[in-house]
Amino acid sequence: MLLPDLRAVKLAAETIKPFIHHTPVIQSQSINQLLGCQVFFKCENFQRTGTFKIRGATNAIACMSNKEAGVITHSSGNHAAALACAAQQYGMSCDVVMPRDVPQFKQQAVSHYGAHITLCEPGMPARQAATAEIMARRPDLKLVHPYDDGHVIAGQGTATLEFIQQVDDLEAILLPVGGGGLISGASVVIQSIKPEVHLIGVEPDMVDEARCSVADGKRHPATGNRTIADGLQAGIGELNFAIIQQSVEKIVSVTEQQIKNALRLIFERLKVVVEPSSAVPLAALLAGRLEHSFERVGIILTGGNLDLDDLRNLI
Amino acid sequence: MLLPDLRAVKLAAETIKPFIHHTPVIQSQSINQLLGCQVFFKCENFQRTGTFKIRGATNAIACMSNKEAGVITHSSGNHAAALACAAQQYGMSCDVVMPRDVPQFKQQAVSHYGAHITLCEPGMPARQAATAEIMARRPDLKLVHPYDDGHVIAGQGTATLEFIQQVDDLEAILLPVGGGGLISGASVVIQSIKPEVHLIGVEPDMVDEARCSVADGKRHPATGNRTIADGLQAGIGELNFAIIQQSVEKIVSVTEQQIKNALRLIFERLKVVVEPSSAVPLAALLAGRLEHSFERVGIILTGGNLDLDDLRNLI
Repeated sequence: MLLPDLRAVKLAAETIKPFIHHTPVIQSQSINQLLGCQVFFKCENFQRTGTFKIRGATNAIACMSNKEAGVITHSSGNHAAALACAAQQYGMSCDVVMPRDVPQFKQQAVSHYGAHITLCEPGMPARQAATAEIMARRPDLKLVHPYDDGHVIAGQGTATLEFIQQVDDLEAILLPVGGGGLISGASVVIQSIKPEVHLIGVEPDMVDEARCSVADGKRHPATGNRTIADGLQAGIGELNFAIIQQSVEKIVSVTEQQIKNALRLIFERLKVVVEPSSAVPLAALLAGRLEHSFERVGIILTGGNLDLDDLRNLI
Repeated sequence: MLLPDLRAVKLAAETIKPFIHHTPVIQSQSINQLLGCQVFFKCENFQRTGTFKIRGATNAIACMSNKEAGVITHSSGNHAAALACAAQQYGMSCDVVMPRDVPQFKQQAVSHYGAHITLCEPGMPARQAATAEIMARRPDLKLVHPYDDGHVIAGQGTATLEFIQQVDDLEAILLPVGGGGLISGASVVIQSIKPEVHLIGVEPDMVDEARCSVADGKRHPATGNRTIADGLQAGIGELNFAIIQQSVEKIVSVTEQQIKNALRLIFERLKVVVEPSSAVPLAALLAGRLEHSFERVGIILTGGNLDLDDLRNLI
C-alpha cells in the first residue's frame, strides 16, 4: 500500500499547475459576525470542471508512464467529468460507466469532454460489473479510482497546500468527507507542514461511515443511505482510511436540515453557487458541532455542479 | 451642475478603500468558448452589502463637511442598504423611505445596518412626498440620491478604475444602465485613462429610456415598466445623462428572455449568485446585440442580492 507523502503532493502541485485554476479565498462579514470567528472559504467550485476533482484526476493521468492507453472509471458525478477533462488534455481516450439514473446535466458534463459513456443499472455491483466487462475486452484501459489511489490523493492534497499558502495562521480546516480523497490529501499536507492546525472532517449523519470507522478503528462500508449531499455517499477508501486514522483530529456529522441551512447561507451571503456537499463543513460550524471554538477557520467549497432546477428542493 | 472628473474618482478610491472589498475578476472557459472571446467578470456581487452601491454611498458621506446630521434616501433596493451601511460606519443616522411592497429581505438588509425605515405607498410620487415630509420636520437631514449626485458617480467610478487596473487591454466594457450611476462613473474613468476602450451600456428592452435618450439627444423619463432586472427600473439621471452623452459609445437593449438565459449561464458556469440586473450585459453578448466583436470584454457583475425563493421564477 503506497501512501503519498508531502513530496508527492508538492510534485503534483507542479505537475497540474498548467491545467488548473488557482482558486480564490473569500469571506463574508455577516457569516463571520454570525459565528463570532473568521471563516475563510477556498472556492474550488470555481475550479475547472466545477470541482477540486480535476486536481487528482490530472495528477493520476500525468503519473501514468504509458499515455497511449485510455482510462476508465465508474462514477455518478464529478470525478467522471474531471477524468474526462484530464484525459482530453493528454489526448487520451476516456470511458465512463454511469448509472442510468444520473441526471442529464452530469452526463452532459462528461460528454462535453469527449468521454465515452456506458450506462448501467443503478448500484455499485452493476457499475463494477459493467466496468469489468469493458476492461476484459480492452485490457489496456487503466482504471482511475475516484479516491482510493495514491496519485489522486496527492492531487487532491494540492488544494490544501494552496489554501495554507493563501491564508496564514488557520487554526482549523474543516472538510467534507465522502470517499476521503480530499481529506486524506489534506492530512498529508497538514501533518508535514502545519501539524498545529486542527483537521476536522464533516459528514452527513445519513452517511457517517467515516466517523464510525475512525471511532471503531476499522473501516465500515458505505451505508447505502441517500443524502442531499450526494457527492458524499461513497464509503471511505482503504488508503484514505489508513491516512486519516493517523492525523485527522476528528470527524463530526450533521443533519440534512443543517446542510440545507448552511447551503442557503452560502448562496445568500457568500453569493456563490455550490453543490450541497460543499455546505457540510459550514453546517457543522453553524450547528455548534465542534467541541472547541476557533478564531480562524478554513473551509474548502468543494464543488459547484448543481442542477438549478433542483435548487428549490434543496434550500 | 458639477460633473466629477478623474481626480474625483481617484480621490474617492483612496477615501473608500478602508471600507470596501477589492473584488476579484473571474472567467469561465466554457463561456469564453461559447462566445469565442475572453470575458472578464468583476464580482461586485461580492462587494460589501452585496452591490457596488456601497462605493458611491460611502464616498457621498465621506465628502460631507458636516457629519453630525443624518442622511436620508428613498430607494426600494440596494442603494438604501448601501447608504445605511455607510452611515453606520461614520456613526450617522440614516432614514430610508421604502414602498410597502418591497420584499421583506430588502427591508431586513436596511434594518440590519441600523437605518430607520418609513414605509410609503408604491410609486415615485408617494416616495418623494414621504421623503419631503420627513425632511420638512428634520431640515438637517441630507438627501443622498442613488445616482444623480457627483460624489455618488465618482464613487461608482472606482469600480471601473479597479477593473482596468486588474485586467490589461480590455477592448470593451459592458455595463447595465438604470439611473446611470455606474456607467457615468465608468465614463469619467475610460474617457481620461483608456479612451480606446469601447464603453457600452445595456438595458432591458422594457425600460430602454437611456437608449432612447441618447438616440434623441434629450432625456426621457422612466418608462414605468417592470423588468426582472428590477435594479434597472429607474430613469436616467440628469448628471448621468450629461456624462454618458459625451463618452458612452452606445446603449443596446435585451429582452426579458435573453436576461433569463444569461442569468442561468452565470449561475451554471461562473458559479456565482447575481441578481438579474447583473446578467443584462452578458445577455447582449449572447444575443449578438453588439455590432462589433471584441476579443477581450469586461463586465461588472453589479450585485448579488436575490431572494432565493424567487429564483425559480427567474431562470
